[in-house]
Amino acid sequence: MSDKTTFEPDWTAEAPAEGTYRSIFKWGAQDEFKHPNSRLFAEMKEKFHLDDDDFKEKKNEGNEIVKYDIPSTLTSEQVESLKSLVGADNTVLDDYARLRYSYGKTMIDIMRLREQIVENVADAVIHPRDKNDVKEVVKYCNEQKIPVYVYAGGSTVTRGTECVKGGISMVLTTHMNKLLEINETNQTATVEPGMFGPAYEDVLNDAPRKLNTQRSYTCGHFPQSFEFSTVGGWIVTLGSGQGSSYYGDAYDLVLSTEYVTPAGTFKTLDYPATATGPKLNDVMKGSEGSYGILVEATMKIYRHMPENRKKFAFIFPTWEDAVNAAREVTQAEFGMPSVFRISDPEETFVALKLYGIEGTPIDGAMKLKGFKPMQRCLLIGHTEGEKSFSMNVKKNIKKVCAKNGAMYITGYPVKNWEHGRYKDPYMREDLQDFGIMTDTLECTVTWDKLHHVHQGVRKFIKARPDTICMTHSSHFYPQGTNLYFIFIAKMDDIEEYKEFQAGILDHIHKTGASLSHHHGVGKMIAPWMEPHLGTEQMEVLKVLKNYFDPNNIMNPGGTLGLDLDPKDIREIK
Amino acid sequence: MSDKTTFEPDWTAEAPAEGTYRSIFKWGAQDEFKHPNSRLFAEMKEKFHLDDDDFKEKKNEGNEIVKYDIPSTLTSEQVESLKSLVGADNTVLDDYARLRYSYGKTMIDIMRLREQIVENVADAVIHPRDKNDVKEVVKYCNEQKIPVYVYAGGSTVTRGTECVKGGISMVLTTHMNKLLEINETNQTATVEPGMFGPAYEDVLNDAPRKLNTQRSYTCGHFPQSFEFSTVGGWIVTLGSGQGSSYYGDAYDLVLSTEYVTPAGTFKTLDYPATATGPKLNDVMKGSEGSYGILVEATMKIYRHMPENRKKFAFIFPTWEDAVNAAREVTQAEFGMPSVFRISDPEETFVALKLYGIEGTPIDGAMKLKGFKPMQRCLLIGHTEGEKSFSMNVKKNIKKVCAKNGAMYITGYPVKNWEHGRYKDPYMREDLQDFGIMTDTLECTVTWDKLHHVHQGVRKFIKARPDTICMTHSSHFYPQGTNLYFIFIAKMDDIEEYKEFQAGILDHIHKTGASLSHHHGVGKMIAPWMEPHLGTEQMEVLKVLKNYFDPNNIMNPGGTLGLDLDPKDIREIK
Repeated sequence: MSDKTTFEPDWTAEAPAEGTYRSIFKWGAQDEFKHPNSRLFAEMKEKFHLDDDDFKEKKNEGNEIVKYDIPSTLTSEQVESLKSLVGADNTVLDDYARLRYSYGKTMIDIMRLREQIVENVADAVIHPRDKNDVKEVVKYCNEQKIPVYVYAGGSTVTRGTECVKGGISMVLTTHMNKLLEINETNQTATVEPGMFGPAYEDVLNDAPRKLNTQRSYTCGHFPQSFEFSTVGGWIVTLGSGQGSSYYGDAYDLVLSTEYVTPAGTFKTLDYPATATGPKLNDVMKGSEGSYGILVEATMKIYRHMPENRKKFAFIFPTWEDAVNAAREVTQAEFGMPSVFRISDPEETFVALKLYGIEGTPIDGAMKLKGFKPMQRCLLIGHTEGEKSFSMNVKKNIKKVCAKNGAMYITGYPVKNWEHGRYKDPYMREDLQDFGIMTDTLECTVTWDKLHHVHQGVRKFIKARPDTICMTHSSHFYPQGTNLYFIFIAKMDDIEEYKEFQAGILDHIHKTGASLSHHHGVGKMIAPWMEPHLGTEQMEVLKVLKNYFDPNNIMNPGGTLGLDLDPKDIREIK
Repeated sequence: MSDKTTFEPDWTAEAPAEGTYRSIFKWGAQDEFKHPNSRLFAEMKEKFHLDDDDFKEKKNEGNEIVKYDIPSTLTSEQVESLKSLVGADNTVLDDYARLRYSYGKTMIDIMRLREQIVENVADAVIHPRDKNDVKEVVKYCNEQKIPVYVYAGGSTVTRGTECVKGGISMVLTTHMNKLLEINETNQTATVEPGMFGPAYEDVLNDAPRKLNTQRSYTCGHFPQSFEFSTVGGWIVTLGSGQGSSYYGDAYDLVLSTEYVTPAGTFKTLDYPATATGPKLNDVMKGSEGSYGILVEATMKIYRHMPENRKKFAFIFPTWEDAVNAAREVTQAEFGMPSVFRISDPEETFVALKLYGIEGTPIDGAMKLKGFKPMQRCLLIGHTEGEKSFSMNVKKNIKKVCAKNGAMYITGYPVKNWEHGRYKDPYMREDLQDFGIMTDTLECTVTWDKLHHVHQGVRKFIKARPDTICMTHSSHFYPQGTNLYFIFIAKMDDIEEYKEFQAGILDHIHKTGASLSHHHGVGKMIAPWMEPHLGTEQMEVLKVLKNYFDPNNIMNPGGTLGLDLDPKDIREIK
């Protein structure tokens, strides 16, 4: 008999027990949580026709201790050989490690692990100490035809790391996680691939003290998964950070790379530009471990000048107005903002609750001026760079927004967004404990197709009754932007989920968007790759695969669609 | 008995007669000329210990009518087949056409053609009408194993187009030279590869009138060869324009491409970014016709706002000061200038003569303030973009330059540089008529290697007595810049020239620079590619070559070093 106005579900607020399934799939730090606030909780209840009683009993939480009956297929000789290469301590075969380093944070991973469904696991987990270990292990596995998967931050949402053919999972975060060099003259940092985002950013920010540099630097790459993603992962999956409109995507940030492949090891040229033919650095970007293993990267770095940041937020009468303003900002040549995000009407509706704007004087002002819920759209962001540049970008953005009918609503919503920028995904477990699934898919659009894709994909998602679909654009180019769809539904059946997700991907493809702006392809989107790229281009990727990895030991089992069974190629109606 | 102060050589100022060798190798428009001014002429005489009498009799001018005895090796059946594919009018076999479309503007082309040395010519010249013609011709030539070379602007300085294995020269400028579409929403232009720079820029500038667009646009790509280079050439050779520091290189400007290869035809994705694996657009960039033929490109375009340009020029006490200032400009994050160029002391010495600064009040002021000849260095440039952005970039550049000891010398030198920006190469023929060879080689350096490369390469060039070596950097990135070496010498022996040039390339490689920043590789730099990239990376380029072109019909004979005889790989001591 709870009081409806004060009832709060018993959101889980304790770290999962060691050795449990939940400790593997839980987003983020084991002992950190972000629970839905009361406005969001109320919205969920209303949307899904639930009442407090529905939030009293939890679904499968995955609190069981990991245990399964899938023996390692490695021979004891193979295990001994691996031990001799990397050390016994760095060769692990227990059930928990094999599962933990085979799965990422893809929705179907979570759904499976909540149900204790263990479909694919590595035969052994290897923690290489350095690039020479990687080289020796790849050489040995190639001889023995043992599949090699790479695990770094483990934040994949595309089944990127899943060991579908067994073999070994090579964990790069244990030892290969160091900054090797900062070159201040060139403004570059040379890094091992398993270095986590925060460790990398911290040492760059703190370089004058830690490395005796003259200046403080920033990496410029802040994906939502920042805290649980690695520099190597950013590169091989073509990630993009929340400041990409200013700093560029991982694609732009990586100057040169060193790869270990079954066909040999090489380090690409580190010139900022060169007219010496097609670039191996480019050939390898986005290869997702299917050609070889990234063992070292030289990254562009930037001066760290947070004091120059200028925050802004605007409310627009309609989505069309927000899109027009955003396009003008990208094409007007006054410089780009760093964080920049426009939310469609449904996301704006939720965001105003989530970021605590609803009910504030800002909300009152918006209502007074006639910005209507489920029509109005939020734009938030901040600038970066040298002081006068940064100020001038904000000044010009204000002009463009005003011209497109927007009202300036201060930097306050940005502050709240910043506060939650890495924390929002933590709410996923809370909701899923009560059967509410939250997932995302995202794509790139050219400006001329933005509305067609947005409407087409949204229409499909909304055709399912009682489904929330929030969309934003958050990575901007003069030629287009991304569309990021967040869908929330009362759904806990794996097959239903898979079918629903496939339908969304079909519509992303059919309406003319790319399959992914920055999540990558993995094994999840692989079936769409051939319809998307065409046979001729897929063939080139396969030719490279076959050269680098003739025995198909590198991330085998569908990654990028390179070794799919023809029957698994998606037929899109 | 000339008056030394007024004597002027009889520089050739008439268009070469039709059908002559000179009409093939002469730079630029047949009836345009730029003669060395009196100060430059005086400098040449002094430097090379010449007097007026040495400028009274010309060397071989190449005024003979083209005639040689190299019969086409195509069978009459093959010729008929080609005629049936592209039309009889578009299939040409006369001596002149075969030579004209086999050579570019490489120094050894000119040296050979002045001597009527015809080493390599196409068996036939083909003018495809559209991409379907290209497809049919490539298919036919692949069946018949007929080599296919591509000729567009013909401005190559790396033996890019030379038909060393005979076959056909496919000329893309005759018919495939049109702008196909401007997409204002996306700010892109879709272009045929044979469209010349000026035609492309004119239609973009004049788009409101010609294409009924709302705005006027610019292509943003202005190499010194602008007037005689094509959009397709920019892309396949990885060119760079004089405004690249702001607009980007051809590498950055091309959004998507369509290629015809012996293995098939494909059009790459046109998203401004996408995380769908390695990008075919990248794999093909810089492939110089050795994988396939570029038949269509979608390019980024920019708003045309010349009214916002802000010119500037500075004189620095030393080269080190100029380099320090330039590096600070690229790394300070206030936005990049468009044209930006620093000249080393020797180039500054010549430039002040060439741009008419010597003897002006500016010259007086420089001397008064103690900027010493052969120490002082010139920096010139201009900004671009939205008005407040452009002004702010110039304001910040002024600050950085002042901090590095520079004196502002107005925008006047930039005006003079602009006036000559495409015309300076015309002086090459004038000087060569009297045995003075002018040529260039260029490379990319990271900032930390700039001085080592500059000094090392310069030392080699200057070790040759009486040789002018002028160097500048003109394309800037936060991580480095290019070094562009102009060398002038009394030299007309081909073997001596080749040995000298090879020595410069050796030193570019040995001191740690890239082999080319924007001229490309062609057949000239090919022998250095394997030492430069390493066997592992060369092997990947060869795997792609073998896939796209298993019969080696596409630009065969050494391009990019893909099919070099091992004995031709350069051994660098």
